[in-house]
Amino acid sequence: MTFQQAPHKLLMIPGPIEVADDVLYANAHPAMAHVAPQFVPVFGEVLTNLRKVVNASKDAQPLAIAGSGTMGWDMTALNVLQPGEEVLVLQTGYFSDGFADALNAYGVKTTKVEAPVGKRPTIDEIKSALKQKKYRAVTITHVDTSTGVLSDVKAIGEAVREVSPETLVLLDAVCSVASEQLRFDEWGVDVLLTASQKGLGCPPGMSLMVVSPRAIKAFESRSAPPATYYLSWKHWIPVMKAYESGSPAYFGTPPTNLIYALNQSLKTILEGPVSLEQRLQKTKEASDKVKKFVNDLGLKQLVAEDLQQSNGAANGMTAVRFPPGMKAPDLLPKVAARGVVFGGGIHKECKDEYFRIGHMGVSVVDSSRNDIDKLLSALKEALAEAGYKP
Amino acid sequence: MTFQQAPHKLLMIPGPIEVADDVLYANAHPAMAHVAPQFVPVFGEVLTNLRKVVNASKDAQPLAIAGSGTMGWDMTALNVLQPGEEVLVLQTGYFSDGFADALNAYGVKTTKVEAPVGKRPTIDEIKSALKQKKYRAVTITHVDTSTGVLSDVKAIGEAVREVSPETLVLLDAVCSVASEQLRFDEWGVDVLLTASQKGLGCPPGMSLMVVSPRAIKAFESRSAPPATYYLSWKHWIPVMKAYESGSPAYFGTPPTNLIYALNQSLKTILEGPVSLEQRLQKTKEASDKVKKFVNDLGLKQLVAEDLQQSNGAANGMTAVRFPPGMKAPDLLPKVAARGVVFGGGIHKECKDEYFRIGHMGVSVVDSSRNDIDKLLSALKEALAEAGYKP
Repeated sequence: MTFQQAPHKLLMIPGPIEVADDVLYANAHPAMAHVAPQFVPVFGEVLTNLRKVVNASKDAQPLAIAGSGTMGWDMTALNVLQPGEEVLVLQTGYFSDGFADALNAYGVKTTKVEAPVGKRPTIDEIKSALKQKKYRAVTITHVDTSTGVLSDVKAIGEAVREVSPETLVLLDAVCSVASEQLRFDEWGVDVLLTASQKGLGCPPGMSLMVVSPRAIKAFESRSAPPATYYLSWKHWIPVMKAYESGSPAYFGTPPTNLIYALNQSLKTILEGPVSLEQRLQKTKEASDKVKKFVNDLGLKQLVAEDLQQSNGAANGMTAVRFPPGMKAPDLLPKVAARGVVFGGGIHKECKDEYFRIGHMGVSVVDSSRNDIDKLLSALKEALAEAGYKP
Repeated sequence: MTFQQAPHKLLMIPGPIEVADDVLYANAHPAMAHVAPQFVPVFGEVLTNLRKVVNASKDAQPLAIAGSGTMGWDMTALNVLQPGEEVLVLQTGYFSDGFADALNAYGVKTTKVEAPVGKRPTIDEIKSALKQKKYRAVTITHVDTSTGVLSDVKAIGEAVREVSPETLVLLDAVCSVASEQLRFDEWGVDVLLTASQKGLGCPPGMSLMVVSPRAIKAFESRSAPPATYYLSWKHWIPVMKAYESGSPAYFGTPPTNLIYALNQSLKTILEGPVSLEQRLQKTKEASDKVKKFVNDLGLKQLVAEDLQQSNGAANGMTAVRFPPGMKAPDLLPKVAARGVVFGGGIHKECKDEYFRIGHMGVSVVDSSRNDIDKLLSALKEALAEAGYKP
């Protein structure tokens, strides 16, 4: 394989991220039947490797379905929860609120443990909320891509087990898988939902999940079947089990090319050249470098300072406030003119006040690309051109 | 662009189909931000061209969302219909029944105009059913991929307008768009749902729709919002309108690479080297050739003979009964050994009794590929090897 992708601006947003040449080449795989003997083990391996990448045991059920990350919220609401049930939502930004909105669309009642922009609920606040009412589930946004806040899933899992062990732990890991430490079993996660286009290093288009036996039991013991056809685990779990055990099955046509791409990317993540643990270390080093650079320039991050000091900031992204008086159009086009793309703000309270840098996947693992240095130079030069003096 | 896909067996099933090199190359596009100024017009053009490819006027709203074709059934049920409403389902096989199952999952009541395998309801039967009860909508499966039956959407549309003009016309066009004649406006279609991996010549992973102003009105005048988050037009229509008018918008991350691929494929379909009309003509010629070859070999098609004589058989596929005593494992591996892949049966009443050949897209348009001759030779040789004598 000698495929090389076309020259392009470096995509340094918190997803979609840069995709490696071999993954893009896999995405250009010739058309394959979704039931072909050659395709079945590829899909099966993707499912097995999804489990591995989040440190889930064999008891956990992986799912990979055509859709976007957002769709994972719907799948969770529909299959694990029932209308009228109470769910505690841990607020970290736009995406925690989105999770709540999705649950509400299905008649699930949500209560938020609120936190201001750049903060997250404390463990004490979470325990206190769990003591006030019996919740069917708690939702955690592992990395809220709108703010860069990183949740302490381990500590939250412990708090839930201590105060309300029957409460299910629902984790939005869209922006954390393969960029942040993640221990599905050990941390007691019941539903993990993610997508293909962030730390997993693929193009967008797949909704991915790993679900615990407890979540499956919740699904199986529902009083009514989920009010859905396409999103029902009743249809998909047998399909996933079939593919993983080496047989084809049909409910809807799987996104074959994305599955080839994801298979390629998962292999790189799990088998090297660097290990998953080294990948996370490299992601953290890149993050430290970006955050120090930003601080040294005198810019503020969206994540509160105390969280920055206590593992409360994501390693795969950084949200940075514009200098006073500066707006997106003053800076981001100047960064783009230097061949680097940053993301704009998205949090409804302050979306015009900050920008977002993604640093995950191949951009941090393959240091020969120099992507991090390129983005830092572009940022520094663009700030200077915009008249900013540190 | 000099990309050439890897050597592979010819995929001659009724979808996914062979994908052209330039479309696969587009699917390997470097990562792009879903809100990038370069991506916005690409997505916008896809939407505009979706309308054109089904002959819909500007009043119709196109949608393109990550998901499978199946998901279009859910989108239709959720947005256009309400629980308890009555829908008339025109039975043509596995996929008409699937549409009904999807509607039932949302509490929509369905009545079927039944037809035996290989047949379709007659216009008289449809009119008669429409006279017996007021239906909110009628569902048509344009090409039922399980049987190869082609519905006469024009005549059904006329029957609906004559007997029950308020009834919405919901068309599953997954296996017909860009392979069969399709006149959205003229035929009075209200919801057309399709997918990327059949006549549109792309990898699977996108649910595509075109909806009429009447369907939008049905959505807007619902008594309750649709019980969904990811599949609600409330979220998606503004996004589609934004992209088509040249601005980005965000609800869920669109499948950027598939959108590049679809854009490339739609351009080929609409701008040539052959026109859409010529493409349909070439598809018909390939179909006639395959069907004559099969008949000359003494094999029976699944589609009833009278329908074969009266434009009731699909042009993009052919479903063929195995000779007496023969089963899939006797024949299909021998075809595959000759580098051609056919599909198995899928209709629940007779899935072991027939196989399916797809002949659409680049395989029929680019005659220099000789795909049709290759599949016919492979079929003939495999039959002979399996001991069949015409």
